[in-house]
Amino acid sequence: MSATRRNDFDVASPAPSASLTSSAELDGHVPGAVTHVLSDYFAARRSAASEIDPHFSEEVVARLEHFTLGGGKRMRPVFAWWGWRAAGGSGSGQAATTALRAASALELIQACALIQDDVMDGSVLRRGQPAIHVAFAEAHRRNGWAGSPERYGESLAILAGDLALIWADDMLAEVVDDPATRARVRAPWRAMRTEMIAGQFLDLRAQARRDASERTALRVDAVKTAAYSVERPLHFGAALAGADEELVAALRGYGAEVGTAFQLRDDLLGIYGDPARTGKPIGDDLREGKRTLLLAIGLRRAEERDSSAAEALRAAVGDAELTDDDVRVVGKLLDELGAREAVERQVRELLDSGLQRIGKAPIKATAREALRTLALEATSRSG
Amino acid sequence: MSATRRNDFDVASPAPSASLTSSAELDGHVPGAVTHVLSDYFAARRSAASEIDPHFSEEVVARLEHFTLGGGKRMRPVFAWWGWRAAGGSGSGQAATTALRAASALELIQACALIQDDVMDGSVLRRGQPAIHVAFAEAHRRNGWAGSPERYGESLAILAGDLALIWADDMLAEVVDDPATRARVRAPWRAMRTEMIAGQFLDLRAQARRDASERTALRVDAVKTAAYSVERPLHFGAALAGADEELVAALRGYGAEVGTAFQLRDDLLGIYGDPARTGKPIGDDLREGKRTLLLAIGLRRAEERDSSAAEALRAAVGDAELTDDDVRVVGKLLDELGAREAVERQVRELLDSGLQRIGKAPIKATAREALRTLALEATSRSG
Repeated sequence: MSATRRNDFDVASPAPSASLTSSAELDGHVPGAVTHVLSDYFAARRSAASEIDPHFSEEVVARLEHFTLGGGKRMRPVFAWWGWRAAGGSGSGQAATTALRAASALELIQACALIQDDVMDGSVLRRGQPAIHVAFAEAHRRNGWAGSPERYGESLAILAGDLALIWADDMLAEVVDDPATRARVRAPWRAMRTEMIAGQFLDLRAQARRDASERTALRVDAVKTAAYSVERPLHFGAALAGADEELVAALRGYGAEVGTAFQLRDDLLGIYGDPARTGKPIGDDLREGKRTLLLAIGLRRAEERDSSAAEALRAAVGDAELTDDDVRVVGKLLDELGAREAVERQVRELLDSGLQRIGKAPIKATAREALRTLALEATSRSG
Repeated sequence: MSATRRNDFDVASPAPSASLTSSAELDGHVPGAVTHVLSDYFAARRSAASEIDPHFSEEVVARLEHFTLGGGKRMRPVFAWWGWRAAGGSGSGQAATTALRAASALELIQACALIQDDVMDGSVLRRGQPAIHVAFAEAHRRNGWAGSPERYGESLAILAGDLALIWADDMLAEVVDDPATRARVRAPWRAMRTEMIAGQFLDLRAQARRDASERTALRVDAVKTAAYSVERPLHFGAALAGADEELVAALRGYGAEVGTAFQLRDDLLGIYGDPARTGKPIGDDLREGKRTLLLAIGLRRAEERDSSAAEALRAAVGDAELTDDDVRVVGKLLDELGAREAVERQVRELLDSGLQRIGKAPIKATAREALRTLALEATSRSG
């Protein structure tokens, strides 16, 4: 069995604006700056880890560092940054640097999520390279060590994920030392991490139970993607800047809707996308048994109309042997059933609603425009 | 393959003293008070988790709560408490309650360690009940859900462990709100959690590499048992009370030595113990391939004297099929080789040295006596 892959989001931050007035202005450079912050943090921790044991540093910490620095579009820190900016946080100077560093800790939480999800899913590839548990297992096999290479690889991946989770907390504690700010960010920080766990649980549970309801599919999207990945990062950034409840509510509302729309776009690309642009084969969600809204709507409509179509869909879900042609047949069926268009409509409605919230909220024009661009990129992309 | 079981320590706190002068005096009641604190914390978090999703609360949080509240002797909080008391922290009143609550968070870290270690080791029993991953797998099987019950069980156990780790941080952040205290406890808190990970890694690595050196065995004991479980909890408690460097060094020295002696006693009981008193079959360490100091010394001596004895020992390590009689034969061999007595001697030396450190340190008589009792119980027990 296998679970959904957590999105290693493919959303770029807005391109550097031509109106940058200072080299310290971070707005257009968040992903690169986050990588820089993480690189500094790992350098410090690697040296502390060496004091515990050099092998621990060389084998576990170095691999976690390579994974964390080596890829990802830094979507969660980018949303946290724009939550900060939307709430009036400055784009340069000491406070901006602190906000950026705090936002960078979200990337360590995401490293844990990706590494451990890949163990749970049995996914062998991540970012075009062997998943961490596969890399650890290969080292074990190459060295002819005792015991099962797979079990060793999974065990070390679990540990590397735990380490990322622990260091995320340490990083936040070290970066934010003002007691009032610290108190403000606790609520989103706490909620985001628990939602990260809850979202993965709900996803695994829906697959195990073959849960075909639209309600469950949307619930998983709401917790695993929207809340953990968009809504709470925005909330976190806004809390850093001391946003009032009204602004937090607007940003969270935008995040919940745009985040869900992002996931629905991802589900559509999983069936109808161009592998040359998405970077992954079509049909993986189907083969893994993922319970998407697209599939739930398709199943309901098939049952209303034609029991043989429903049977064909049910047989395809979780069938690891599906060929690309099989996937295209399923895609055509979902199209004919109107499921594709229903999901496309939901994406448009969620996007419109999310943008309206931002349009009415009392935020600076720069931030509103950036959030608009992020939302469009997240929901209209073709890869 | 299988890894060492992390000790679910069997050390009781000192019995309530007859000289208790107040019902609020905590010294004799730490384990029970810790359970009470954890129970309150879970009640609050369970309700917050329900708001994310009732199934998450009922299936994951409830099982984690049952596991955390249902067993364990609270050894780490007990050592943290006596670190606090040794450094002059009061035994009753508001400050004592805060210290006790902070110390209780250590038990959540340990819940993560035990739950995830059992996944890595493939251990099926914990505290006389099915390990958490086994319980989750059984529910999956009973319900006839899709996919592999084992994989589902392990995935949910990983998530439950992560949740415990996250909530440990949340709990500490909520309990300790004085900025100066918070700053003081960061160093031991950070070190303890990273050492928890590093210790398990070093243990798995030694087993995989069939590392037979005494140095490695002692290194695993130093990080996985002594540092994570005794030294850092004491350090943490002392830091809560604002101990100076000299006292912290004395407590850490005691913790490193007593913690290692505790592990060596555990290794001896694993071969020579009475299952009726230890609660576990003899020989599990051998069957799991654990690289203990006892075994390392035995192997070295066997190689010096008699190659057939060395061969017999090497064949026994990691042989899951060993009978109890086989284990007794190995035990007899280690005895004849003098390995048993060499380890007994190390236990005595470590205990003496640890007690000396405490004897000379500037701490209150009550705390010195409690630490003395804890050390004797940890290293002289027969079960």
